[in-house]
Amino acid sequence: MINIGIIGIGRIGRVHGESISNHVKNAQVKAVADPFLNENSIAWANSLGIKETYTNYKKILADPTIDAVLICASTDQHSPLSIEALQAGKHVFCEKPIDHSIEKIKEVLKVVETSGKKYQVGFNRRFDHNFKAIQEAVAAGQIGKQQIIKITSRDPEPPSIDYVKISGGMFLDMTIHDFDMVRYLSGSEVEEVYAAGSVTVDPAIGQAGDVDTAIITLKLANGATAVIDNCRQACYGYDQRAEVFGTNGAISIKNDSSSNAVFSGKNGVVAEKPLFFFLERYMNAYADEIASFVNAIIKDTPTLVTAQDGLEPVLIGLAAQKSAAENRPISLKEIRAAYGL
Amino acid sequence: MINIGIIGIGRIGRVHGESISNHVKNAQVKAVADPFLNENSIAWANSLGIKETYTNYKKILADPTIDAVLICASTDQHSPLSIEALQAGKHVFCEKPIDHSIEKIKEVLKVVETSGKKYQVGFNRRFDHNFKAIQEAVAAGQIGKQQIIKITSRDPEPPSIDYVKISGGMFLDMTIHDFDMVRYLSGSEVEEVYAAGSVTVDPAIGQAGDVDTAIITLKLANGATAVIDNCRQACYGYDQRAEVFGTNGAISIKNDSSSNAVFSGKNGVVAEKPLFFFLERYMNAYADEIASFVNAIIKDTPTLVTAQDGLEPVLIGLAAQKSAAENRPISLKEIRAAYGL
Amino acid sequence: MINIGIIGIGRIGRVHGESISNHVKNAQVKAVADPFLNENSIAWANSLGIKETYTNYKKILADPTIDAVLICASTDQHSPLSIEALQAGKHVFCEKPIDHSIEKIKEVLKVVETSGKKYQVGFNRRFDHNFKAIQEAVAAGQIGKQQIIKITSRDPEPPSIDYVKISGGMFLDMTIHDFDMVRYLSGSEVEEVYAAGSVTVDPAIGQAGDVDTAIITLKLANGATAVIDNCRQACYGYDQRAEVFGTNGAISIKNDSSSNAVFSGKNGVVAEKPLFFFLERYMNAYADEIASFVNAIIKDTPTLVTAQDGLEPVLIGLAAQKSAAENRPISLKEIRAAYGL
Amino acid sequence: MINIGIIGIGRIGRVHGESISNHVKNAQVKAVADPFLNENSIAWANSLGIKETYTNYKKILADPTIDAVLICASTDQHSPLSIEALQAGKHVFCEKPIDHSIEKIKEVLKVVETSGKKYQVGFNRRFDHNFKAIQEAVAAGQIGKQQIIKITSRDPEPPSIDYVKISGGMFLDMTIHDFDMVRYLSGSEVEEVYAAGSVTVDPAIGQAGDVDTAIITLKLANGATAVIDNCRQACYGYDQRAEVFGTNGAISIKNDSSSNAVFSGKNGVVAEKPLFFFLERYMNAYADEIASFVNAIIKDTPTLVTAQDGLEPVLIGLAAQKSAAENRPISLKEIRAAYGL
Repeated sequence: MINIGIIGIGRIGRVHGESISNHVKNAQVKAVADPFLNENSIAWANSLGIKETYTNYKKILADPTIDAVLICASTDQHSPLSIEALQAGKHVFCEKPIDHSIEKIKEVLKVVETSGKKYQVGFNRRFDHNFKAIQEAVAAGQIGKQQIIKITSRDPEPPSIDYVKISGGMFLDMTIHDFDMVRYLSGSEVEEVYAAGSVTVDPAIGQAGDVDTAIITLKLANGATAVIDNCRQACYGYDQRAEVFGTNGAISIKNDSSSNAVFSGKNGVVAEKPLFFFLERYMNAYADEIASFVNAIIKDTPTLVTAQDGLEPVLIGLAAQKSAAENRPISLKEIRAAYGL
Repeated sequence: MINIGIIGIGRIGRVHGESISNHVKNAQVKAVADPFLNENSIAWANSLGIKETYTNYKKILADPTIDAVLICASTDQHSPLSIEALQAGKHVFCEKPIDHSIEKIKEVLKVVETSGKKYQVGFNRRFDHNFKAIQEAVAAGQIGKQQIIKITSRDPEPPSIDYVKISGGMFLDMTIHDFDMVRYLSGSEVEEVYAAGSVTVDPAIGQAGDVDTAIITLKLANGATAVIDNCRQACYGYDQRAEVFGTNGAISIKNDSSSNAVFSGKNGVVAEKPLFFFLERYMNAYADEIASFVNAIIKDTPTLVTAQDGLEPVLIGLAAQKSAAENRPISLKEIRAAYGL
Repeated sequence: MINIGIIGIGRIGRVHGESISNHVKNAQVKAVADPFLNENSIAWANSLGIKETYTNYKKILADPTIDAVLICASTDQHSPLSIEALQAGKHVFCEKPIDHSIEKIKEVLKVVETSGKKYQVGFNRRFDHNFKAIQEAVAAGQIGKQQIIKITSRDPEPPSIDYVKISGGMFLDMTIHDFDMVRYLSGSEVEEVYAAGSVTVDPAIGQAGDVDTAIITLKLANGATAVIDNCRQACYGYDQRAEVFGTNGAISIKNDSSSNAVFSGKNGVVAEKPLFFFLERYMNAYADEIASFVNAIIKDTPTLVTAQDGLEPVLIGLAAQKSAAENRPISLKEIRAAYGL
Repeated sequence: MINIGIIGIGRIGRVHGESISNHVKNAQVKAVADPFLNENSIAWANSLGIKETYTNYKKILADPTIDAVLICASTDQHSPLSIEALQAGKHVFCEKPIDHSIEKIKEVLKVVETSGKKYQVGFNRRFDHNFKAIQEAVAAGQIGKQQIIKITSRDPEPPSIDYVKISGGMFLDMTIHDFDMVRYLSGSEVEEVYAAGSVTVDPAIGQAGDVDTAIITLKLANGATAVIDNCRQACYGYDQRAEVFGTNGAISIKNDSSSNAVFSGKNGVVAEKPLFFFLERYMNAYADEIASFVNAIIKDTPTLVTAQDGLEPVLIGLAAQKSAAENRPISLKEIRAAYGL
């Protein structure tokens, strides 16, 4: 039985707490910590049988019976907490992104390497049944040599402008998942990025210096070209589709709905909208990523989303930002060189 | 927290044990009992944190801290165990069917009535997301006045001949779920049944006196006609579809798959087969039916599948058997009269 | 070049006239005849380049340059015109049904046999791309041994009560196409029929002595069971689906729409309704059936829908009528015996 | 009745000849001309009732009874024949592209303007039922403000290397249809193009100086961004899909197949491959574009694909070529300026 401590019990911390309690074998949440701990959050913890609730995360790090830590604090805390937890001898699961700063991610990577502890980044979509079906088919050679990879990723609603301002921008906050998907589905690395960004949802997002809509073209080391289309708002819900096309065929996934019921009536043949947003769509994936992390600890195998997997999408995101800003394709070599990688 | 005892930990007993441990809030399995208890089953129980494992179910009934009992023993034990558990003051969840004998079901109904305890029958499909989507649309009046109800229900593989011989026959063992679905989706009662049965899967099933394929037509009290098509074997997996057609439109559901990935290749555009069988297809429904049962206990509300709901499909099944045997439509009145109902 | 005369230029006669002019190679309409010929119909004929327009069909039969006749008059004229045309040495394409009277159909069959002329009945659905895809797969053995055949056939709107009264009843007017489909898809003959009819669309149809909704179960000589569901009105349009299920799999077809466009919006994911009715749905099939008839004449091969194919569905329809009236399964042997067949 | 002459009766010339004979009202092919006229092509013409067959197209231009000319000769002949035919007083339907040379297209535009004759370019996809369904929904405001437009366009097999060498390159030969689609679906103009081209199908195509795979991003005047993905070879057939996403929803189309039959078997749930290539997929569109051209002549209305519509996609194609070659986004302004537009 792996004892887990969760640092940060906002929305995503609670998702993990509940899915560990309900779905993850051989693991239990022993303690949670949050500086804004209150009656409500204590009651939530107790309802899951979690007895230890702290405002100070250091109590979790100091508890020798806790094997692993989930870092679900705000993004700016991800890298310092990662380092501190690893140094305290804990296995670490860190929500994405590790950091917006490449320098800080590099520090985390250094500590991961020397710590001998497991480190996994929260790219939950790798554990989704649909995306996995593509990845497995591609890895098994079913589609032959890859030629074109397409990802559609649209949110049902934009974040608040306050969040937009601290998010690192759409490419680092939202598209980062899609950059990870390109790497995951292709099993290859990105060499060049061209991003065409626009503001079509809310002018305030533009005024905050960000885009809310984008088409991003990525040239891959394996010779394939990937294209991502993003929008911060789709009125019909969370749009999460992908396709890998190759010499032996194409494999594609579409959205999931709460049922497959179809109503044929006077106004057409109507199916349900996609599941609303990431919590609904990736509910099972959240449980499976933690189960996978727990499994890596127990069996002492590499995690399926390594610290390096946490670094790469941030580099791609920085390239996309630069590309959109300068309206030219940006080589990843250029980005790596700038950061001494 | 509702304490539950499970009597019988074969396949379906274990499904319930695991889903309660993993998914059902406000409930825990305190004890299991099985006459064939062995190392393996004890280990299984312990892995879920169930400490009390008995060969004699009476220990469960005698435990005053146990609130509710799940009866997952063989069918011939369902009705006596139901009565004994109710009389011991337990709420009872009983796997379907309550019994093949109408007389025994009547006895159970009598005890349920006087016991003041909750009683729920294991018609799990009522808790499936797809079937529920139809039921809710119909109940909300979306399809208008019902005209035609269609259910396709085909298993991926036939049971063993040994099981066929004691199963009560396909209509009582397999179609019984579809009879329940007709009642659930329509919200109406069956008045007449015509069953055309045949043996197309395995002659040995015919030699055992049963059919393995059937088309069953049911005339309903609300004026609609329902039709069920059954087969004990579909080479592509568990086929579970339904449609309700009415004056304002038709609502239909199709099968679920493990992913919605579609592969376009030289040989066509290939989607995944349906989920293999009932354990895969109705995994969530099994958890939800117990959650619903627990909820009915906690909130003291009627269960969503009553003892009466356990009786009706058996009556319809007996009518279907008689119809297939005599090759004529059988009125439910005729069946009810024969049993003094 | 086959010269064709069309007798009767109501709706279906015009469909054939136009499709021959536009789509059928090696054939042309030389003359049309209709007792209600007027300015409008003459203009229609001229617009297709048809110069000869008569009120008296006998002028068509007397024209030695006309090779073949299409009988598109009212149903009661089908059999006498068939006989007269065959005796005049014409190949005959006759709209369905040949007649409601088995005696009259038998007379037609006798004349067909001795005439040495081609005779084809207008079961247009045999020439539809979707139904053909099923038939070809079944005939090729792709589904293995047939077990269950399902046909859904619902009209977008009921005919007028005046038409209902002379139509011969729903089973002979509408279901007759589905009876033909059962024979066509299965390649087998019907041995027994059970029809559960009801009036759910319009009480006036019931007052006229007919049903407007039905589930018909058919036991086939090849061991399979077929089931047809019919309704005179589906608010979402013409519903024409089918499925053949066998030991190696199931093949099914769904409706066609005017485009496959799907709109994802706030209210769901909306596809188009089915094509409205038979003219839209079977436009190409109407052309292909005549092309097939023309081809049979030119190559001197049997027609793909013979006079015998015209007789069988009427027998099945009579069995269905009797079954619904007497509420019992009716053997086709019983029907055949009654007509000395 | 509009009399038509066809210049060039290779593959596409014959498609038009047959569809005019079979499907286009108020028009007939009076003459065809082809320098390579032979027994075979004369027999083909005669079979359609076309009596006048010439090796010299000037005979068509000299025939005062011929109203309109279809230019189906090789691409290098399109612009000189357009000019000559217009000057001979004929309405002109010209296969795409008008020319690879902007200068020559400009000359054609000048003659079109002064001639007072109809001129239509052969962008057949505008007349396809699926693409039209998107265009109509967009034009009707159903999707709100456009944000993202996606077009997938993949051929089943690459052209010969000989053809590749004279084709003008993939962007001008194949993608040109997709550039037209972007303009047609959006009703807006392209302002900037970024093309990422690669060679993934056949190295010989690369050696011939062309690409066979591409992702092209287009920024539109209306604020939307479009993305096209192309490949010269998809092993599953002709892949022609599109989607327009906007503030009120997304509308998308998928491929057409010869039937919608689906086979569920041991290896999955298998639908048919898309229709093989453009002749199969756009059969009806070819007829409808000529019917539309004929209609514009008869009613003296503008054609639905003007000479200007013939120019724009070539400009976009030249921008795409330049973008791929120089690996930077190219403004259409830059291209227009280079050609004095």
